[in-house]
Amino acid sequence: MGSDSDLPVVSGAIKQLKAFGIPFEAHVISAHRTPYDAEQFAKSARDKGFGVIIAAAGKAAHLGGVIAAYTTLPVIGLPIKSSTMDGLDSLLSIVQMPSGVPVASVAIGGAQNAAILAAQILGVSDEKIAERLRAFKVEMAEKTRAKDADLQSDIDAI
Amino acid sequence: MGSDSDLPVVSGAIKQLKAFGIPFEAHVISAHRTPYDAEQFAKSARDKGFGVIIAAAGKAAHLGGVIAAYTTLPVIGLPIKSSTMDGLDSLLSIVQMPSGVPVASVAIGGAQNAAILAAQILGVSDEKIAERLRAFKVEMAEKTRAKDADLQSDIDAI
Amino acid sequence: MGSDSDLPVVSGAIKQLKAFGIPFEAHVISAHRTPYDAEQFAKSARDKGFGVIIAAAGKAAHLGGVIAAYTTLPVIGLPIKSSTMDGLDSLLSIVQMPSGVPVASVAIGGAQNAAILAAQILGVSDEKIAERLRAFKVEMAEKTRAKDADLQSDIDAI
Amino acid sequence: MGSDSDLPVVSGAIKQLKAFGIPFEAHVISAHRTPYDAEQFAKSARDKGFGVIIAAAGKAAHLGGVIAAYTTLPVIGLPIKSSTMDGLDSLLSIVQMPSGVPVASVAIGGAQNAAILAAQILGVSDEKIAERLRAFKVEMAEKTRAKDADLQSDIDAI
Amino acid sequence: MGSDSDLPVVSGAIKQLKAFGIPFEAHVISAHRTPYDAEQFAKSARDKGFGVIIAAAGKAAHLGGVIAAYTTLPVIGLPIKSSTMDGLDSLLSIVQMPSGVPVASVAIGGAQNAAILAAQILGVSDEKIAERLRAFKVEMAEKTRAKDADLQSDIDAI
Amino acid sequence: MGSDSDLPVVSGAIKQLKAFGIPFEAHVISAHRTPYDAEQFAKSARDKGFGVIIAAAGKAAHLGGVIAAYTTLPVIGLPIKSSTMDGLDSLLSIVQMPSGVPVASVAIGGAQNAAILAAQILGVSDEKIAERLRAFKVEMAEKTRAKDADLQSDIDAI
Amino acid sequence: MGSDSDLPVVSGAIKQLKAFGIPFEAHVISAHRTPYDAEQFAKSARDKGFGVIIAAAGKAAHLGGVIAAYTTLPVIGLPIKSSTMDGLDSLLSIVQMPSGVPVASVAIGGAQNAAILAAQILGVSDEKIAERLRAFKVEMAEKTRAKDADLQSDIDAI
Amino acid sequence: MGSDSDLPVVSGAIKQLKAFGIPFEAHVISAHRTPYDAEQFAKSARDKGFGVIIAAAGKAAHLGGVIAAYTTLPVIGLPIKSSTMDGLDSLLSIVQMPSGVPVASVAIGGAQNAAILAAQILGVSDEKIAERLRAFKVEMAEKTRAKDADLQSDIDAI
Repeated sequence: MGSDSDLPVVSGAIKQLKAFGIPFEAHVISAHRTPYDAEQFAKSARDKGFGVIIAAAGKAAHLGGVIAAYTTLPVIGLPIKSSTMDGLDSLLSIVQMPSGVPVASVAIGGAQNAAILAAQILGVSDEKIAERLRAFKVEMAEKTRAKDADLQSDIDAI
Repeated sequence: MGSDSDLPVVSGAIKQLKAFGIPFEAHVISAHRTPYDAEQFAKSARDKGFGVIIAAAGKAAHLGGVIAAYTTLPVIGLPIKSSTMDGLDSLLSIVQMPSGVPVASVAIGGAQNAAILAAQILGVSDEKIAERLRAFKVEMAEKTRAKDADLQSDIDAI
Repeated sequence: MGSDSDLPVVSGAIKQLKAFGIPFEAHVISAHRTPYDAEQFAKSARDKGFGVIIAAAGKAAHLGGVIAAYTTLPVIGLPIKSSTMDGLDSLLSIVQMPSGVPVASVAIGGAQNAAILAAQILGVSDEKIAERLRAFKVEMAEKTRAKDADLQSDIDAI
Repeated sequence: MGSDSDLPVVSGAIKQLKAFGIPFEAHVISAHRTPYDAEQFAKSARDKGFGVIIAAAGKAAHLGGVIAAYTTLPVIGLPIKSSTMDGLDSLLSIVQMPSGVPVASVAIGGAQNAAILAAQILGVSDEKIAERLRAFKVEMAEKTRAKDADLQSDIDAI
Repeated sequence: MGSDSDLPVVSGAIKQLKAFGIPFEAHVISAHRTPYDAEQFAKSARDKGFGVIIAAAGKAAHLGGVIAAYTTLPVIGLPIKSSTMDGLDSLLSIVQMPSGVPVASVAIGGAQNAAILAAQILGVSDEKIAERLRAFKVEMAEKTRAKDADLQSDIDAI
Repeated sequence: MGSDSDLPVVSGAIKQLKAFGIPFEAHVISAHRTPYDAEQFAKSARDKGFGVIIAAAGKAAHLGGVIAAYTTLPVIGLPIKSSTMDGLDSLLSIVQMPSGVPVASVAIGGAQNAAILAAQILGVSDEKIAERLRAFKVEMAEKTRAKDADLQSDIDAI
Repeated sequence: MGSDSDLPVVSGAIKQLKAFGIPFEAHVISAHRTPYDAEQFAKSARDKGFGVIIAAAGKAAHLGGVIAAYTTLPVIGLPIKSSTMDGLDSLLSIVQMPSGVPVASVAIGGAQNAAILAAQILGVSDEKIAERLRAFKVEMAEKTRAKDADLQSDIDAI
Repeated sequence: MGSDSDLPVVSGAIKQLKAFGIPFEAHVISAHRTPYDAEQFAKSARDKGFGVIIAAAGKAAHLGGVIAAYTTLPVIGLPIKSSTMDGLDSLLSIVQMPSGVPVASVAIGGAQNAAILAAQILGVSDEKIAERLRAFKVEMAEKTRAKDADLQSDIDAI
């Protein structure tokens, strides 16, 4: 993440990675304040065994693009909403990457989805993670159906 | 792709997949006009050996989300610009997915990047593809440097 | 509705349907989390006697489009404002449907209007509902005139 | 339609209504230039046997709202893109109706969908129209599948 | 104003008209809920001695356009911000009027300016009002200079 | 107008003023390139007998605000669409004036309406101009009705 | 700044200028309420020894452009977010300046950055300020690294 | 510039720098394709004698931010309009920089202004450049007045 102020959002990704049992590291690295660290992190990530990098940043959110410039790993961009522009600046800064260097953007504030996407990417070749994703999908459907059942009693009270 | 009218854009992804030597299928499948086909394609994709799905669509671009609802494979959304709204409708329909079912969005019209991202995802566990991505990065830098060199002679004429 | 978190908005539609005496069902069905349920609901709706379907959803709001893909009944889309993008993402995801499969969008958060539009659609062939709509229009005008009368005493205090 | 300059777009709705065999009238009536005509048309529409009204207009597109103010029939708003604002002004002017008086908006320039939605509304109680809509859906799926088949030969040439 | 909920904003215009000593009437009249009243008010306004009409409305803000359709008096549109779209819908619905029927838009929520603009319009031929506007301008400049003076002591504390 | 490149749009206002027989002056005066001229023009306009000022400008369109700062005459802002941002920048720069100094904005590119609004303002106290505006309204309605009549023969050919 | 209500934002610039030890003046000067003062300030700024001017304003934020019209000094525009439009109006009014008269825009609410940019401009020829900027960059990187270190203990608790 | 496709726009800056007699270098350097070159260029720019850096880029325009991360020189960001989003993505990616690392944004496509701003920055301490800027301002005003004079003969023909 580009700033420690992003943690309340990013923690949604951390929780989901823990739930999936996927090992991870979390860092505050800024494309603009610690550009050398961003470069070092990105260049060495593949050799250190990372499979995917999630870059969370707000406003002119360059972190994902800067990371992607230095690695061939897939980079997921997580746009953080700031106090102005309702997250549109973060989203466009992340998703509108020029040809040659993609960043995979999820929704503004979509931390949980960033983690699920990371799991899906790892799950392409890791059958255990793929199995956890299937279980997650089943559980999600069951929760939604339970909410539908709960709703029926609420309707009369409206 | 949701419509055969998307082909002029999507062909940028096809060219890049061919350049990387990555086998692929291309289909016209619509979330709204052939929803059963979309469901069947998505449900069976993993078992058929697909590793990533690229869903290209415009306007209320639901294709990526519908595909992602039926598979645990990573789904890349490619927003197609239509004749109104300059692609913003396509982008938001693709990227703003609710929690639980991510779609990885690339830039509006970013077909080449959709293919590169697909290669990066496959390259996590496929060292040959990873090697091609490294070569692609080197070649890209060399081309940019060549353009910088070419530029120097143009400047005097301005 | 795509999520039970939409209920505080959707309840405005439920209240209005009750006020019009129009029988209805309310469900939590998600285009992405329970896609099979969405398909089953949509495919069987006409035979079960439904005349109109209101689909309320936020962000990349695909529910209306997914429902409309499986039925020939008119589908009303109700965009729910989420925590980012001020509802523009929900609106565009609902209203910008490609040719062949329309969704009738009402205003962002316009739950009462979704119910009134449903009543107007049913009222095309149901004279009783049409009569209630006429009475509703008269009552609405009278309330507005009463507010105008009330306003006159407030002006002096400003 | 609010202006005869809207005809090139609106003709898409006319063609579809003809294809469905649904009788219709088409008029140039402006909320601002011929407000009395708009009022008279709207007030008498139900008694004249109209079931649905499609109001096509651009920019500050008030026609749908003005029509809806004077009738209990469902009113479909068709936003026309003008030379500025890419249709966003037309869309918001049509869809963001205040509580009590809905207008059912389709996509910017979505003339064919306005006609299909009108058919769906009439088809709630008219089984013949419902049957034509079912046939239309089947034909649409077949066309899409044919395009998918055609695509396969194009891919090699890319 | 189109709704009594607009009063907290519109009261800014009322206060300024009182401060200028300009006689006025204030009404709740809705383009959609009481369209006949809007028509009657607009048609008779000039003969009743009104010089300018301020139309305050939010969302699909048709009131100004509907009033302007029935009168040759200048109509000032005051866009009211609603709970979604940050006022952009109100602004575009008011300002983007088609050729032939202008509405003079002020800023979103710019109630005081609506009153000042009304005074400026009346002041074209009414020298007393023009004189009050000149005094207002002088007073405004003096207040700004006083704030500048006050600021100097605040700076040290920052 | 702020630039002579605005003339193709502004000429629509000039034609309408000529049609109404309203005397006028047209100038290229820039808030940024000839600020002294803008100041002199605005300060002396009332004494020279001007009743209304139309300020046409694009992009960061400050001309209307700068003129309004120096006069108590009503100032009409005419937003000119430039090559980027589709006129939204011009519109917001004109219409979003802070409290105390209004500018009356018409639609982006709405030159004819700027002239009609100017006529309406002058017509508040000038019965001859008011009469021309009434005639203009009648003629406009007749033209619209003629177009409606013409349309009837076009429909069969669609 | 255009209004004393901008002070809570502008104070971020004042603090940073103090931290850099750069002498400054702060004023409330309005392009619209005190245009003569704005002109006088801008015309005399260079001769009084100012090197850079920061103009903070919101809504139709003309202050930067008006200042820039009267001086050859670099003018930094600081867009202030107001209660509507989320700062987009302020940003576009500041940044979209026509050719010939630039204003250097920083982020919406980016007061600290306005001060740093001013320091960078002065630092082009002032080695002491340049040295402070280098120290600021080092300190910023160290703070970010310290936050990264702190983060590691927080992760376990998530 | 980030791509040689930006040259048609950037040439406007080059022409103006030549007109001012300011020595410059122009390069194609990409934040994403040649990140090492961007880093090297930025780090060494001050020592090589550069006073200002203009970074032109489109879409997710990270070049300015990446350059600014590695230097204490003022960096001017020039947003280039691409084929989608009308330049808004470029603008927000450049101007919305987080605290600590400013980029001075000019208008979308505002190449001439980028050069003028660079001259103004250099002119703070370079009296010769300041003198050229004064002459430029006088010439600009004279050209505008000449256009105003030319306009007078055009008006009759409208």
